[in-house]
Amino acid sequence: MRAVIPYKKAGAKSRLSPVLNLQEREEFVELMLNQVIDSLKEAGIEKIDILSPSVYGLEVMARARVLLDEKDLNEALNRYLEEAEEPVLIVMADLPLLSKEHIKEITSTEKDICIVPGKGGGTNALFIKNPSNYRVRYYGSSFLTHCSIAEDSGQNFEVYDSFMAGTDIDEPEDLVELLIHGKGPAKNYIDRKFKLEVKRGRVGLVPY
Amino acid sequence: MRAVIPYKKAGAKSRLSPVLNLQEREEFVELMLNQVIDSLKEAGIEKIDILSPSVYGLEVMARARVLLDEKDLNEALNRYLEEAEEPVLIVMADLPLLSKEHIKEITSTEKDICIVPGKGGGTNALFIKNPSNYRVRYYGSSFLTHCSIAEDSGQNFEVYDSFMAGTDIDEPEDLVELLIHGKGPAKNYIDRKFKLEVKRGRVGLVPY
Repeated sequence: MRAVIPYKKAGAKSRLSPVLNLQEREEFVELMLNQVIDSLKEAGIEKIDILSPSVYGLEVMARARVLLDEKDLNEALNRYLEEAEEPVLIVMADLPLLSKEHIKEITSTEKDICIVPGKGGGTNALFIKNPSNYRVRYYGSSFLTHCSIAEDSGQNFEVYDSFMAGTDIDEPEDLVELLIHGKGPAKNYIDRKFKLEVKRGRVGLVPY
Repeated sequence: MRAVIPYKKAGAKSRLSPVLNLQEREEFVELMLNQVIDSLKEAGIEKIDILSPSVYGLEVMARARVLLDEKDLNEALNRYLEEAEEPVLIVMADLPLLSKEHIKEITSTEKDICIVPGKGGGTNALFIKNPSNYRVRYYGSSFLTHCSIAEDSGQNFEVYDSFMAGTDIDEPEDLVELLIHGKGPAKNYIDRKFKLEVKRGRVGLVPY
């Protein structure tokens, strides 16, 4: 089994720009990436690839293999899957609430595919036992797309139901979940900049 | 064991008012309430109470006992807990993705308390084995509060990690999760009014 993490540091997380500037966003995604690598390693996954369109921010990465592919995310991942000769876990880099326990459960599915839904129709992780028989299509409602691709190719699948693994950090409101449920460097980074504020209904953020 | 569902139909779900008018919101919350009752019954819970400040919308409710209490939610629930002589599951009425499997897992916790976090710091369900030893405090960051109350009273607790049980329907974006992951009357109601639209990043809603 191997894991692959799509990653782009340059100009990362533009939807967080109302609350974090470019430098902060780039620092923050690097912390999140490293937490995902930590969780994968703690779960016993030794072969970890980072798939990036650019070497920016990965110049000294020694904890994972860096694969550069300038193509669009889907093309790059599908090329990766085509060449893979063992089960592949695709895991997004913005999942600081993903734990080793989640990863162990996801990769021990009895089905051909395990799909971890993210907020708003996304796919936060995808475990594929036979990668040469599967193609990904991220963007848009990729969760539904990935379910259909599994069905259409005759592979059965499990939907992995987790609040924590389902929390990808894209919008300012997601930082609230990180502050409430998170730990580690990514949480500490946000903790130094914001505090929780009780707004109408859900909890929000205010800067220090 | 008994379950209690706090419920208020009049003027319900004001944060959905950008996309649903008052009548629609009141119809919709009634459908969600009935789905939660369905899931509780399917999970084998026979004693179900609806705790409401008003009889409005519950005039002909025959599927659960209706308890009227005009006090604020926390006061009414704490009075309920004080008088309960068996384990209590408090479950919110706006959880149309909550299944009988979730309920069975939540109520079979080995800990004293099982807390189901909702989006933005909320508490979507709370299972309390010794209700006379526990008090609730909803509103604000109630998830963290409920963890503290458990700790302070010397009761251990489990956090139940579920994307589906964690999805309370309060904001328009939550309707997207219902359309993607839901089934049943509440989903069908929203399905007739909106379709999914791929916006920047996450999927959004557009009216028909």
